[in-house]
Amino acid sequence: MGSRLVVVGGNAGAMGTAAQALRADPSLEVIAFERGGWTSSAACGIPFFVGGEIDSLDSLVARTPEEHRRRGIDVRLRHEVTAVDLDRRVLEARDLENARTYETGFDQLVLGTGARPLRPPLPGIDAAFVHGVQTLDDAEVLFRKAENQDCRRVVVVGGGYIGLEMAEAFKRWGASVIVVEAGDQVMRSLDPEMAAFVSEAMERIGIEVRLGTHVNGFDDHRVIVEGGDLPADLVVLGLGVTPNSELARDTGIELGARNAIKVDRRQQTSAAGVWSAGDCCESYHLVSERGVHIALGTVANRQARVAGLNIGGGRAEFPGVIGTAITRVCETEIGRTGLSEPEATEAGFDFESARIISTNHAGYYPDARPIVVKLIVERATRRLLGGQIVGGGPGVAKRIDVVATAIWNRMTAEELVNLDLSYAPPFSPVWDPVQTAARQLL
Amino acid sequence: MGSRLVVVGGNAGAMGTAAQALRADPSLEVIAFERGGWTSSAACGIPFFVGGEIDSLDSLVARTPEEHRRRGIDVRLRHEVTAVDLDRRVLEARDLENARTYETGFDQLVLGTGARPLRPPLPGIDAAFVHGVQTLDDAEVLFRKAENQDCRRVVVVGGGYIGLEMAEAFKRWGASVIVVEAGDQVMRSLDPEMAAFVSEAMERIGIEVRLGTHVNGFDDHRVIVEGGDLPADLVVLGLGVTPNSELARDTGIELGARNAIKVDRRQQTSAAGVWSAGDCCESYHLVSERGVHIALGTVANRQARVAGLNIGGGRAEFPGVIGTAITRVCETEIGRTGLSEPEATEAGFDFESARIISTNHAGYYPDARPIVVKLIVERATRRLLGGQIVGGGPGVAKRIDVVATAIWNRMTAEELVNLDLSYAPPFSPVWDPVQTAARQLL
Repeated sequence: MGSRLVVVGGNAGAMGTAAQALRADPSLEVIAFERGGWTSSAACGIPFFVGGEIDSLDSLVARTPEEHRRRGIDVRLRHEVTAVDLDRRVLEARDLENARTYETGFDQLVLGTGARPLRPPLPGIDAAFVHGVQTLDDAEVLFRKAENQDCRRVVVVGGGYIGLEMAEAFKRWGASVIVVEAGDQVMRSLDPEMAAFVSEAMERIGIEVRLGTHVNGFDDHRVIVEGGDLPADLVVLGLGVTPNSELARDTGIELGARNAIKVDRRQQTSAAGVWSAGDCCESYHLVSERGVHIALGTVANRQARVAGLNIGGGRAEFPGVIGTAITRVCETEIGRTGLSEPEATEAGFDFESARIISTNHAGYYPDARPIVVKLIVERATRRLLGGQIVGGGPGVAKRIDVVATAIWNRMTAEELVNLDLSYAPPFSPVWDPVQTAARQLL
Repeated sequence: MGSRLVVVGGNAGAMGTAAQALRADPSLEVIAFERGGWTSSAACGIPFFVGGEIDSLDSLVARTPEEHRRRGIDVRLRHEVTAVDLDRRVLEARDLENARTYETGFDQLVLGTGARPLRPPLPGIDAAFVHGVQTLDDAEVLFRKAENQDCRRVVVVGGGYIGLEMAEAFKRWGASVIVVEAGDQVMRSLDPEMAAFVSEAMERIGIEVRLGTHVNGFDDHRVIVEGGDLPADLVVLGLGVTPNSELARDTGIELGARNAIKVDRRQQTSAAGVWSAGDCCESYHLVSERGVHIALGTVANRQARVAGLNIGGGRAEFPGVIGTAITRVCETEIGRTGLSEPEATEAGFDFESARIISTNHAGYYPDARPIVVKLIVERATRRLLGGQIVGGGPGVAKRIDVVATAIWNRMTAEELVNLDLSYAPPFSPVWDPVQTAARQLL
């Protein structure tokens, strides 16, 4: 038996690292501690399960504890790691079911503790009808409520990705859904005028959007807001997440943006032999050139691959992120990458932007639908800084990947115009909408 | 009135150049000679019009002669340019309707003469039931035949893009369709095993594919092939196109790959002040680093933009192409970019490839369909050389654009794996299929 790797966490960041490390070095002894009862679950699928689009909760489990064990990982469910002693290379784990605590030694350690939904300290926030969206246990509870005919009035607090997806999920069951957002737009990662298209799409399918509305608390199936309380059978919190980095902090490991665990390009923390990957961990933003906290499955998987390769004796680097993300509101798809205008300002760029309306495919081909594309470039260099797409028709949002790849490679608007992108009438106008936006910038 | 620009041709290459030049320099006097009766028609839409998906032929006209005239271009339809005298800066035009010939002077000239379907000199190829697919007149004739209940047996000669699209068009009308291909695969721009998925998709919708079958001629509603003639009410030729470069050749202008008109990066031909853009014209392939002839609307439009900017006094360069193309057979989408294996061999690369099967979106999300992705890298540098995608689900083929953008930027497989692409369960697995293929190469 080789050296011992201990991973803390049971999802993509932790288990992905463990699996990759074991592939790279099969002599490793690997132990995984997971506080909950699941491993490798696809939390991003929860809104679609709650909405009734996905039949079985089991299908959201990419790999069960049993499957991990068959691959040689000693998975210990319902175990919480409560302390780490870096000098002694020992951690303290608490077996939650048997209420006992014991020590385990390690040679290398992975912190893949994930993130949790933000729960601001509002009166009544711990009431039973106020739910976060995180684990498959949450998914099951929310699905039961959604299909229950008593759950007719749903209030979603927060207009980000999860908020929108959960709003649509309950709308699918015919509930009356109100999204309450403290800011003056939904989807704060979009520019305001692009977010307005999203709000319109929500209103079109009957989801009420209340912007600039602060929630002051929760009380007896009511959400307390200015201008009249909202009755609610159920409240879903979609206020974003915060990294579970307390264990790292208490161990003396350095934290970065939004208290996410700081790592180098090899995913190593400030402590030698301690690695981190996934939602608990910071990323480097290649455009703003700053540390950011982006809790996404794609990022977690890529970080885990790099961490695992390094633990297994290889040498790999994770270059960073550019904030690419997509979602949808029914038929309206939404994609974004790079910096929004406020983010570009914040990062100190002098920029210009262009916004065009095109169609998802050739205008003369049936069912052509409007698609809005916005591109942001640095004024002096014309280098692309960001892109946003909102529109109808399948495959629209995934086009943001071309902009992402262009930004990743520091292309200019002129270079994007000349790029050899694909075209056929059922798929695109002859000038891809992304290129039409780039032409606008010339 | 400024200097005179004469353009030969009425489609994307010619009229796109004219329009762009006029925008850049409104003092230009612009005359356009077009042999046929249409301008700026979307030939790529013809199969979808013939298949009954597009209602009106007019919708395939991006800009009518009248619209061009209103923008200041003197469009002369049914005029053929028969000779160019570079020394005297004069050309000879024949007014086909009035059977008269006259001379017109020019300061700058654009050859945007397009391409025509290949018609090999087979016995009977000029019979009335044997059709090429090129102009909107062809489209109208083919549509009338398609909707005619007498046209039940259709033979398509050639298994390329147009052949496949026309086969599907007639299949939509319930005709019995046979595609006859001399080579041992359809879609010669794909590798054989990828093309096999396309053949299977064709067979699934009831199109018969006969590979390795040479056509020896046409006779009294029969296609003469080895092993038994095929009865046919209609034959569609899908054998590719050849550039209309005779006028250029006769003028002493240099030709390049497959007799396409040679141009520099500014789209200027070997003769000063004579420019070319579109299907008649050569392109530079950025991966093989050779001249190629690729007759596609996207390339024509980009070349025309560059030619027009230069004619109008600016300075623009067209960097080249990488052979990106997409099409579909019913629900099966097909995309390719860069070099195929035979092309990589031909270009002298030592390469490796990987092929993976993934799904169009998260496996647990409803209606996940298989998608096959193949990537080719240079062995020593791991630089991406080519990519191919075949699969089901809307938006699958357009994903080739990410590979195209990666190849354009000379990315390696490792860089592609780390790229920040978008993900949400209705749109993609957490590892985009393109990245799964890249991982296979590591």
